[in-house]
Amino acid sequence: MYADFLSKKLSDAGADEGCMLNVTVAGKTYKGVLMPHHEFSGQDIIILKMKSGYNIGIRLDESSQIEVVSRPVERVKPETAEETKKGLKTIVLIGTGGTIASYVDYRTGAVHPALSTSDMINAVPEIKEIANIKANVLFSIFSENMTVPHWQQLAKAIADELNNGADAVIVPHGTDTMGYTAAAVAFMLGDVSKPVIFVGAQRSSDRPSSDASSNLMAAARFCVNGNRAGVFVVMHDGSGDDVFAVHNGTRVRKMHTSRRDAFKSINVPPVALVDRAGKITFNCDGRPVSKDRVEVRSDMCQDVVLLQFYPGMDPVLFRDIFMKSKGVVISGSGLGHVNSNMVPLIKEAVDNGTIVVITSQCLNGRTNLNVYNTGRDMLNAGAITVMDMLPETAYAKLMWALANTKSTEAAKGVMKTPLAGEMSDRRVML
Amino acid sequence: MYADFLSKKLSDAGADEGCMLNVTVAGKTYKGVLMPHHEFSGQDIIILKMKSGYNIGIRLDESSQIEVVSRPVERVKPETAEETKKGLKTIVLIGTGGTIASYVDYRTGAVHPALSTSDMINAVPEIKEIANIKANVLFSIFSENMTVPHWQQLAKAIADELNNGADAVIVPHGTDTMGYTAAAVAFMLGDVSKPVIFVGAQRSSDRPSSDASSNLMAAARFCVNGNRAGVFVVMHDGSGDDVFAVHNGTRVRKMHTSRRDAFKSINVPPVALVDRAGKITFNCDGRPVSKDRVEVRSDMCQDVVLLQFYPGMDPVLFRDIFMKSKGVVISGSGLGHVNSNMVPLIKEAVDNGTIVVITSQCLNGRTNLNVYNTGRDMLNAGAITVMDMLPETAYAKLMWALANTKSTEAAKGVMKTPLAGEMSDRRVML
Repeated sequence: MYADFLSKKLSDAGADEGCMLNVTVAGKTYKGVLMPHHEFSGQDIIILKMKSGYNIGIRLDESSQIEVVSRPVERVKPETAEETKKGLKTIVLIGTGGTIASYVDYRTGAVHPALSTSDMINAVPEIKEIANIKANVLFSIFSENMTVPHWQQLAKAIADELNNGADAVIVPHGTDTMGYTAAAVAFMLGDVSKPVIFVGAQRSSDRPSSDASSNLMAAARFCVNGNRAGVFVVMHDGSGDDVFAVHNGTRVRKMHTSRRDAFKSINVPPVALVDRAGKITFNCDGRPVSKDRVEVRSDMCQDVVLLQFYPGMDPVLFRDIFMKSKGVVISGSGLGHVNSNMVPLIKEAVDNGTIVVITSQCLNGRTNLNVYNTGRDMLNAGAITVMDMLPETAYAKLMWALANTKSTEAAKGVMKTPLAGEMSDRRVML
Repeated sequence: MYADFLSKKLSDAGADEGCMLNVTVAGKTYKGVLMPHHEFSGQDIIILKMKSGYNIGIRLDESSQIEVVSRPVERVKPETAEETKKGLKTIVLIGTGGTIASYVDYRTGAVHPALSTSDMINAVPEIKEIANIKANVLFSIFSENMTVPHWQQLAKAIADELNNGADAVIVPHGTDTMGYTAAAVAFMLGDVSKPVIFVGAQRSSDRPSSDASSNLMAAARFCVNGNRAGVFVVMHDGSGDDVFAVHNGTRVRKMHTSRRDAFKSINVPPVALVDRAGKITFNCDGRPVSKDRVEVRSDMCQDVVLLQFYPGMDPVLFRDIFMKSKGVVISGSGLGHVNSNMVPLIKEAVDNGTIVVITSQCLNGRTNLNVYNTGRDMLNAGAITVMDMLPETAYAKLMWALANTKSTEAAKGVMKTPLAGEMSDRRVML
């Protein structure tokens, strides 16, 4: 609900949603398309979609002026029944929550999850010009609260949509753990035959410089024109505003707390770049889209932990965790090391049937336990390395490998076999 | 010891250490200065220092040819008594081990720690032209085995040398945990009045393309001409070979397992860049060198752990660690989050007197627990944030803060106060 003064101003100007407006506040004029009002936004705030694609929130007062510049050829009609246009591909949005589906309450500053994914679509009207969009909300949580059951439910929902006619699925997701979820879903969906794209936002939709709409649009363009099957993450690339990166879901990591280009492909280039006009530039080969049925293997062993090695790490303190877990992923130092005191604990855990997987806290580069004595001791203790796999991806994969094999040795074999582009066979050149 | 055939070839050619040689093997000729032979190197290997500053190891056979191109004006004299030149500053090297002080055994491929830091100096004869160099080996371990007592011993040794006339201290150190040690020593030495520089190598001294000599030389140049007090890390900058980065010891992280430019300043630019000619370009202000006595406060509380949050992290599994620790550093997701299940454990630990410090696994950017409900719940539970401090630096600082204050509240205050450039006051712009 807008404040009375603002409702009147909008009404007097004939300013409906979808109209291009000039809004003048304190001597400054903003030009943009009027977006739907969200119930959590302040009553004196209107949201304008700027030419750049960003939405900005503007606080108006009694002295502000609103002028209609033009009306949309086709009005934005929130909450109308979904229209299906022939010849367009069908993309299903499966909402999970997160900033991309959030609105700031300008009165308190708090961020609320959105109530409806259709709100999100209505904020990006141009997405309907390139695809038939269906949306459903699977859950609405901040991504730090995603758990293995959420991943499983999501993977099944994605497979169902793809097997029921969707040409692609886009998953709006909180950015905090989007990399973990993308990796987990990539292993669960295996050789998925169509694009599955995770997309987030670092600024909520009704904030100045929100990246929600532009990331969503870039993801949709890649779904429609990319002809590339797999699980991907699409977010801003670089600090500019014109290029979006398509990352392999098993190779991507959130590398900044707040920048719009926080997501980076690690150890590989992004799969592709998409510019604002929709032009796609691929950096690597991959699987084309096919009509194959999507099989989902969503079993996961939840007795897996992820630990960062640090100097002075005490095996006594961590013994219980090692002994109670079926899998331990360690992000070791440098080439993948732990201190010598930890090596007997690794051996004890391995002898107890635990799989200990070594990755590197350097994130970039590959592990190699054959260079130094510490590393060879770790190998002798039974630790395994996984080339240049990210610690977070190894965590998701180890859960999957333990649940989808019949023996510890088979699970180790799975860990060492690339399944979803998560590691490279290329030997390290020292 | 060289193999007999190789000793004879060197002797016949009159090729002493320090001579510029042309060495022809299998039709290819290498030009460089003959370096001392290390006992761990293969008997058929000679080490040449190339014009680029790199040392390469060349395996010779009976058919290889050695020709002396020129002799050094001043011969390299390994193991002679240290000479003191008037007018030059004094740099003390305090050896700790690591790749920079290591030699590969070409027979087995294993890397051995060096026996003597003077070996290292003798491999960089030009360092003696810019400073009087003294060297002692404090210990010789791989850095993954560094512990808090090693940090303490090292900080005291550095302070002793600086208070006994050294103008600077260079600490050759294994790269695996060099960032952690530099941060810990930075807090222990406080407002140290002279340069203390950690320097490592990603390739051992007798390997092709070793960066040991060039990193050491850049560190020495910064000591002599930088007029900047503090604790720094000097390593290659970028993939080229001409520029070296001087990092603040509390802001640096090993970000690649094997590249020579693995060390990156995070959230700040490097303090300075040093080119091969010794030209120093500063990126920020800092304290000039002074004659103040160096005070060392090396007390550390070792009951501190560093944990990475991950989706599904189980408070039951980690309860013991939280309750047994006086300090817990969590690298949370995004702005510093954990899942909602972990929040009661944070509260229980804080109520028990534990300090829980939140950093971000994104590494770049700053934490902010005021944006989302999860964050506010964490703050209400008693967790504290430390702006843009690295998780590893927070781990070292929390040990120091707990040992050098009289109350938990005072230690929290120390954590939130920049002491050694480890965090920025600037507010995040969302």
